[in-house]
Amino acid sequence: MGTISNKLEELGIVIPHAPAPVASYVSVIRMGNVIVTSGQLPWLGDSLIHQGRLGEQLDEQQGYESARVCAINALAQIRAEAGDLEKITQIVRLEGYVHSAPGFRGQPQVLNGASDLMNEIFEDAGRHTRTALGISEMPLDAPVQLCVWAEVE
Amino acid sequence: MGTISNKLEELGIVIPHAPAPVASYVSVIRMGNVIVTSGQLPWLGDSLIHQGRLGEQLDEQQGYESARVCAINALAQIRAEAGDLEKITQIVRLEGYVHSAPGFRGQPQVLNGASDLMNEIFEDAGRHTRTALGISEMPLDAPVQLCVWAEVE
Amino acid sequence: MGTISNKLEELGIVIPHAPAPVASYVSVIRMGNVIVTSGQLPWLGDSLIHQGRLGEQLDEQQGYESARVCAINALAQIRAEAGDLEKITQIVRLEGYVHSAPGFRGQPQVLNGASDLMNEIFEDAGRHTRTALGISEMPLDAPVQLCVWAEVE
Repeated sequence: MGTISNKLEELGIVIPHAPAPVASYVSVIRMGNVIVTSGQLPWLGDSLIHQGRLGEQLDEQQGYESARVCAINALAQIRAEAGDLEKITQIVRLEGYVHSAPGFRGQPQVLNGASDLMNEIFEDAGRHTRTALGISEMPLDAPVQLCVWAEVE
Repeated sequence: MGTISNKLEELGIVIPHAPAPVASYVSVIRMGNVIVTSGQLPWLGDSLIHQGRLGEQLDEQQGYESARVCAINALAQIRAEAGDLEKITQIVRLEGYVHSAPGFRGQPQVLNGASDLMNEIFEDAGRHTRTALGISEMPLDAPVQLCVWAEVE
Repeated sequence: MGTISNKLEELGIVIPHAPAPVASYVSVIRMGNVIVTSGQLPWLGDSLIHQGRLGEQLDEQQGYESARVCAINALAQIRAEAGDLEKITQIVRLEGYVHSAPGFRGQPQVLNGASDLMNEIFEDAGRHTRTALGISEMPLDAPVQLCVWAEVE
């Protein structure tokens, strides 16, 4: 077993199978040695882990969990494209969009759910750049949408 | 005539001349074999095909049309940079921003106007990743803003 | 002294030291010959040059100044990664997010603060693509968030 598989087991993180694309776009694509995902929502099986806006129906902890689930789903997509998470040499960029009620400013704390996961799993190779934006309306009333850019061998 | 020219003729799609840049930025740039556009608005000649917010002045069908026009304008810019649309090997990524009234959640349906166009024209090479976000305020009261990333020979 | 150093001196622009990262993400990363920053806020030393929303607490001129400071901070990060701003061959892309009150549509005018700076310093190599979006909520109540993509030797 590779380093990343061991790390996932140690952390008790299970990366699900990547859901098949059902829309007029795909979930992941490769440009040279960079893999980019579509905007990931926090699907747990067939439903979203949370729905609603931060600072209204949801609190920061629920937002953090949502961002973490988005990141796990992004890794599922990257694994489907790369064949193996061991091939990731660097998590390059997280684009984070937080469904925010007026006045909610905790976007960075919410997105730490995704950032912390990448750092836990990949350590130095998990150090990434990030954008953190508060968005007024989100498809399916999802609390977070996340794109991940990763460099692979 | 190449495959893409034939396809455009078959679909009855005319790609306009790319408008010359008038601002302090440019409409398209190349990084290695990747071409990226600026955020495209739904210009038809000198005016926007629609103005306003989805879920307020505009309905989903008008949003779909707007996204389609944004995508056509993006292709005009990519053609200006690449010389020929035949050189596109893959539409890589659509970043879609939908000007949304409170409670409007049909961003994916609106952006299908751009996604469907790419799939119709480029078929397998049109399969792209996507972000779909609801934005509260948009330059010129445009309903949609779209960036396109394409890989070329 | 190189061309860019001369230009900065001529324009009276001082690029600060890049602040060390304090969060669970990093401020800048390199993918091949492309450098990408995290979303930059308009820090001047330990505080933001302005706080609030455009069209509410802030006017367009204050927004323009904020975007310019974001761009200067992005250049500080790119210099920290590249070693020297002379190595920049092209400013490729500015992703601009403007904290906007309902009805504020001057996102392009605000972001010209960043675009004009790049053009002044880098001239032809400063010509970039851009997105300009109005965002309802922003971390730390910052008026502008800006990501910069630059190609280097």
